Amino acid sequence: VVLCQTTHPGNIGASARAMKTMGLEQLVLVRPRHFPDADATARASGADDILARALVVDDLAEALVDCQLVLGTSARLRSVKLPQMTARDAGGRAVAAVRKEQRVALLFGQERAGLSNIEMDHCHALVHVPVNPEYGSLNLGAAVQILCYEVRMAMIDQGQATVAAMDSVMAAPQGMFDGFVGHLEKVLGQIGFLDSKQSITMMRRLRRLFQRAAPEEHEIHILRGILSAVEKTSGDARD
Amino acid sequence: VVLCQTTHPGNIGASARAMKTMGLEQLVLVRPRHFPDADATARASGADDILARALVVDDLAEALVDCQLVLGTSARLRSVKLPQMTARDAGGRAVAAVRKEQRVALLFGQERAGLSNIEMDHCHALVHVPVNPEYGSLNLGAAVQILCYEVRMAMIDQGQATVAAMDSVMAAPQGMFDGFVGHLEKVLGQIGFLDSKQSITMMRRLRRLFQRAAPEEHEIHILRGILSAVEKTSGDARD
Repeated sequence: VVLCQTTHPGNIGASARAMKTMGLEQLVLVRPRHFPDADATARASGADDILARALVVDDLAEALVDCQLVLGTSARLRSVKLPQMTARDAGGRAVAAVRKEQRVALLFGQERAGLSNIEMDHCHALVHVPVNPEYGSLNLGAAVQILCYEVRMAMIDQGQATVAAMDSVMAAPQGMFDGFVGHLEKVLGQIGFLDSKQSITMMRRLRRLFQRAAPEEHEIHILRGILSAVEKTSGDARD
Repeated sequence: VVLCQTTHPGNIGASARAMKTMGLEQLVLVRPRHFPDADATARASGADDILARALVVDDLAEALVDCQLVLGTSARLRSVKLPQMTARDAGGRAVAAVRKEQRVALLFGQERAGLSNIEMDHCHALVHVPVNPEYGSLNLGAAVQILCYEVRMAMIDQGQATVAAMDSVMAAPQGMFDGFVGHLEKVLGQIGFLDSKQSITMMRRLRRLFQRAAPEEHEIHILRGILSAVEKTSGDARD
């Protein structure tokens, strides 16, 4: 469970408790406003061991460096070009991935704003909790509770064969993926494909496109091999 | 939703919010320790209308007088002689009953002790949330959230129709995708990336990788734009 820029420490505590009741253990906090904090500890109740072992990082990429499946949660449907799934499907997908020894991140945005566009760029899919359209204000701790509950339900459910069969891809760790995206950006600059005005939008689109494919390690090697070949040609051109 | 002898008003507020996000409206409080209370209002966030309309009663029987199905929740399995079901089954049962115009109560006990034996005597069945056996301390608001979520899921569950409609990626026609793959192959040959021995295997791998991402039309245009930029650089190199 990765919480981004959490404002209220009470929600961090509630999330830790939600995780522990459902058997999840690793909490990562990206730039929490207040942590450690007495409110977090109070709301964690007996789950303060989760808080004690929580990782606090400055940067989302750092939090996800080992992860092979990143599921971002969103109370509302987003019009972004990412696969979307329900919390229930997310539980199944996460458990199927874990059974293949993959590391999975459930990503939660800031309380009020939710996940930013940049945070969503790190996700392989978005998870939607089907809230009341007239009042979708799901508390952060409650959202964590529902997702962790669905993970647990999937974990103890033996009827999830279809979900498990769905995906045989073993995605590369996110750090390796980021390395590829950085390399891609460099090469695209070099061949004059990125103009400075639109380069951020363009890189975001490309990142999402490749993120959807969730390349495996050997595929990342192939893609970087292509980039190196382009670099070489392009270098020759300039000589 | 009927809360029995709730100790912490914050949990009443959290329950109201949990209910409203999931589209439930009628809250009944049986002998709450503090209510109304500022903590309840604060935690309810925008769901204070649920609190304002909450019924406060002295006696559980009074709360249930209209109800035709009473489901009591329990974090742990009880050895009482009552049918037991999961939260998921309870959602389905509750919705099925409501569709037959029955009134259904979801009953929650006091935070620490849970439902007393006397309170359980009012129940038609007990609902079990499958918590971590080593730490089953589900917060009251979190338990309400999970049950209300399961009611909502059962309410909107029309098979997988909602999920299918949610997927926002609209893949390009396969002919357009094939055009991209052909272009890719040509450019990779041009920059010396494909050696003839392994080129079939390599192109198959790349095809699968991009196929997984299921690029949309405008994404195909971007990818082909990159290929054209590479071609141009590479042509320059040869001149």
